[in-house]
Amino acid sequence: MFKEIFENVKEKHPLIHNITNYVTVHDCANILIACGAAPIMADDADEVEEITSICHGLNINIGTLNRRTIASMLLAGQRANALGHPVVLDPVGVGASKLRMDTALKLLEEVKFTVIKGNISEIKALATGGGTTRGVDANLADRVTEENLDQVVAFAKAFAKETGTIIAITSAIDVVSDGETTYCIRNGHPMMESYTGAGCQLSAMVTAFVSANPDRPLDATAAAIAAMGLAGETAYGRLDEMDGNASYSNYTIDAIYRMTPEKLEKGAKYEVR
Amino acid sequence: MFKEIFENVKEKHPLIHNITNYVTVHDCANILIACGAAPIMADDADEVEEITSICHGLNINIGTLNRRTIASMLLAGQRANALGHPVVLDPVGVGASKLRMDTALKLLEEVKFTVIKGNISEIKALATGGGTTRGVDANLADRVTEENLDQVVAFAKAFAKETGTIIAITSAIDVVSDGETTYCIRNGHPMMESYTGAGCQLSAMVTAFVSANPDRPLDATAAAIAAMGLAGETAYGRLDEMDGNASYSNYTIDAIYRMTPEKLEKGAKYEVR
Amino acid sequence: MFKEIFENVKEKHPLIHNITNYVTVHDCANILIACGAAPIMADDADEVEEITSICHGLNINIGTLNRRTIASMLLAGQRANALGHPVVLDPVGVGASKLRMDTALKLLEEVKFTVIKGNISEIKALATGGGTTRGVDANLADRVTEENLDQVVAFAKAFAKETGTIIAITSAIDVVSDGETTYCIRNGHPMMESYTGAGCQLSAMVTAFVSANPDRPLDATAAAIAAMGLAGETAYGRLDEMDGNASYSNYTIDAIYRMTPEKLEKGAKYEVR
Repeated sequence: MFKEIFENVKEKHPLIHNITNYVTVHDCANILIACGAAPIMADDADEVEEITSICHGLNINIGTLNRRTIASMLLAGQRANALGHPVVLDPVGVGASKLRMDTALKLLEEVKFTVIKGNISEIKALATGGGTTRGVDANLADRVTEENLDQVVAFAKAFAKETGTIIAITSAIDVVSDGETTYCIRNGHPMMESYTGAGCQLSAMVTAFVSANPDRPLDATAAAIAAMGLAGETAYGRLDEMDGNASYSNYTIDAIYRMTPEKLEKGAKYEVR
Repeated sequence: MFKEIFENVKEKHPLIHNITNYVTVHDCANILIACGAAPIMADDADEVEEITSICHGLNINIGTLNRRTIASMLLAGQRANALGHPVVLDPVGVGASKLRMDTALKLLEEVKFTVIKGNISEIKALATGGGTTRGVDANLADRVTEENLDQVVAFAKAFAKETGTIIAITSAIDVVSDGETTYCIRNGHPMMESYTGAGCQLSAMVTAFVSANPDRPLDATAAAIAAMGLAGETAYGRLDEMDGNASYSNYTIDAIYRMTPEKLEKGAKYEVR
Repeated sequence: MFKEIFENVKEKHPLIHNITNYVTVHDCANILIACGAAPIMADDADEVEEITSICHGLNINIGTLNRRTIASMLLAGQRANALGHPVVLDPVGVGASKLRMDTALKLLEEVKFTVIKGNISEIKALATGGGTTRGVDANLADRVTEENLDQVVAFAKAFAKETGTIIAITSAIDVVSDGETTYCIRNGHPMMESYTGAGCQLSAMVTAFVSANPDRPLDATAAAIAAMGLAGETAYGRLDEMDGNASYSNYTIDAIYRMTPEKLEKGAKYEVR
């Protein structure tokens, strides 16, 4: 099934509007092109509504946010909502400052997101920060393992139901839920944590996959996550003894560029609960 | 002839002031060093005039522009004009928003550009947006091919004459005109569209080439475009079956770094009309 | 001794807050991860104090500074001082504009820095710009060579004593002094000047090394500089005839990723004066 989803990205070439951080923005642009989509970056309040209007989806990432770009995120998000475009939120470091938490909560209040994608700490912080303690086990570890998987699935389901948004939690095992159905994805490699931007790139790619498959956002989110993980595996297999995290980072984007829908279908490792 | 032009870049090491977008800025810096020039990035209104004064040329790129940097572009452009420094405009996505169009038109009004470099859609948008429909065929396709080449050459000539600026249109065939003489350049590879920043890097390199050859800006622009295309060819020849757009992007910069003036002379494919 | 210092970085995984320029920020993040530390980038006045509080060290780099980020640098620096965190200053291009000089001097006035790291021109400009001509030979060349090494060592010592800050001058020979003891480090390769960001990356890594070794900041600074130089040597040894500055840049980060404390101990070339 992921095959058709990826084929749609390659056929529809969705144009994705990114309001994202300046650390990993270059790689977000490259991975969007690699998967068959196209990027546009624009963050000024005077143009974001217009830019988002000519796009197929919007990716909001709060890393290196500032007062100027926060206003732009709200404007673009509301316009994308009005147009029925998918909107993805990556709450980077949301637990690290009041500004990030307040911004994320304000975004959740004023924009309807299709997907929220983060690591377990970020999603936990968001659920707790919003006063939503239901379904949040304070002792929930910061890694998803076979041992706590049931617990994480329950949390993702509950938070998805409550927000009416697909919740994607990335870790050694990735968990994606819309409140009813939950994917547990076992692609990826630990070295993906050794470079900056894997998470940001994934959010961009999730936006592309969801935008090209608007009627199946849950499956599309899962497919993008499996693709990213599979790329990390392929890239790892390619390393020589002098390659480190900088080359590895490029190799993962290369692997997305070379990935066919068939390879994704064959390489994706997941179960549906 | 391109040999001497490139030798001048390597001998004079022009320092180029870039007010550019945060997506591709890193690669713009690296390609400037690769070709023999040196980059400085500065975009605050409190310093751009001073920075541009110690440089040999100014590169203005409107991707990810914002109110703060628009003011800086105008200040730097006017100072560069006063000093007689070459100024290049890359009107990234000028047709995508009113802010970009208004900014580009204001820049054209208040700053005298040496070169405007964009793809056919951007240059067409600029010509039309400015109310200049003369010479602009609304049906002009968004790609330059052998079939519509005469039409594009006529358009580039007319727009160059009207603006008094060298117009460089990049596509499968690149067209560069000062209103009298026109270069048609046939270097490059389709894969150069598969990564972010080839166009931004080229604008930076055009600024370097023109700054090191102030008395032959048309030839210098054509030489930079041929060099970029040739680098794309060299990089393509180097790809292995796992390399994708991220590695390819680095390989093109590598190819500029390794390119000698002799290689450029030999590899450049162009005709002058 | 550098072995233990590097081991501490790998064991303590210091979290480093970076307020830095948007040109080289991606590579700063990657080199921090490569050496065993972790990066966070945040530059809005509304969050920098909180962000710096959860970190172990602060890296301030004035490339692409602007009015908004200057205020953030001051706030973060003062908070880091209050918490006793190491703070590193990279005065990028401080001699290029009044804004950069005024900012650097204001930072020196209001923030106590652990280390100031720059090339000889930057450190000279800073010493002179601050009205400190003592110890500054106006004729001091812009490169550190065996011929002027004694002179540079004397200058570094004097400026370190005067500011109560470790002064790190990077060049063919790197000079690091706390006013009493001075390291002269002979690692590195000339090709490290052929890509953007080696200096910015080094400042980030110095912050990590000093943060993980708070009781030996001089040795830690010297160790980080030797590690960077050694990485440049390793990366150079790996180049093939098509690799240029873009690949070389990635290879240096790769080399840090692959570097063990033992390799650093063995490869570091320095004398203590």
